[in-house]
Amino acid sequence: MEGALPLVKLIEQFAKLPGVGRKTAQRFAFYILDLPEEKARDFAGAILDARTKIKKCPVCGNLTDGELCPICAAKGREKGLICVVEDPRDVLAFERTKEYNGVYHVLHGLISPMDGVGPEQINVKGLLERVNKDGAEEVIMATNPTVEGEATAMYIARLLKPLGVKVTRLAYGIPVGGNLEYADEVTLYRALAGRSEL
Amino acid sequence: MEGALPLVKLIEQFAKLPGVGRKTAQRFAFYILDLPEEKARDFAGAILDARTKIKKCPVCGNLTDGELCPICAAKGREKGLICVVEDPRDVLAFERTKEYNGVYHVLHGLISPMDGVGPEQINVKGLLERVNKDGAEEVIMATNPTVEGEATAMYIARLLKPLGVKVTRLAYGIPVGGNLEYADEVTLYRALAGRSEL
Repeated sequence: MEGALPLVKLIEQFAKLPGVGRKTAQRFAFYILDLPEEKARDFAGAILDARTKIKKCPVCGNLTDGELCPICAAKGREKGLICVVEDPRDVLAFERTKEYNGVYHVLHGLISPMDGVGPEQINVKGLLERVNKDGAEEVIMATNPTVEGEATAMYIARLLKPLGVKVTRLAYGIPVGGNLEYADEVTLYRALAGRSEL
Repeated sequence: MEGALPLVKLIEQFAKLPGVGRKTAQRFAFYILDLPEEKARDFAGAILDARTKIKKCPVCGNLTDGELCPICAAKGREKGLICVVEDPRDVLAFERTKEYNGVYHVLHGLISPMDGVGPEQINVKGLLERVNKDGAEEVIMATNPTVEGEATAMYIARLLKPLGVKVTRLAYGIPVGGNLEYADEVTLYRALAGRSEL
């Protein structure tokens, strides 16, 4: 391919994005070429801004461009209810429900001895300090239902219980809109075990 | 969603890319956040560079960051063989075959009276001047096999023939790896009509 060098370089950059192959990268690059220069400048600026201005909230570890993250800084949130998640993406997912009014604690990882990640490598200490210092009524363990997610939730729950805080876990069950026929047996078993009265 | 503002803005930018929805845009944005600052700077720079440095080759209309496009500037290409395409993307597609050694002419559009695009809006005049001035042995019409592509090819062919140049059209037929069972009747008819001796 003998394209113009800046174009080739841009295609290479786009091709590094997760799940983007050569053809899609090329489509993206041509989209950029078709933009008014002003808009292309905005795009490039957004990348730089996000990368340079965003850091971790010192309280919860969520991403922020200010002193505290928007959720820790918000007045109306219940500070006594802490939802523990693996990743800032999970915060966005919960926020989309528009139903949760507590705060978060972002671990930035899960305990995974296989990958050499122990409790020291993730943001567990911050959570304990926070519960110790500010107090909390309930901590919801909302890590993913994987082996590492479960192990991390169990580990943290064991550390939190002596502090006298209620520790809960997200419900397992059939996803809404899901099909019983296609549900795996573990999910189905959990859905049975967690059944509630109508 | 109460994400940090620079992150929200970056997600919005990625979501504008063709075929990218909110979730994918979010994945892309988090990829950027995970990059070393240097690499994020390269990415932003590639967007700006591509948009500001790339312009049309004055000879063939292909994209270039130099005086002439790399193909027009190349010594070894047959200047007497001109492949006429709709879009710079098509040039990249032909170059990937590594079999074509002629030059190109990029129309930047197709004649489409429905959309108010006449022969004046696309790069036809440049092609005629080029053939007139520099001479050419053969012009391959390589527009897409759509109504507009066909009409544009026919129109240009009619203008070129009086100049004494050979005008050809890409072959139609079954795509390699394709299945006869699933080929549409027009393609099958064209494959039959264009059959060659073994």
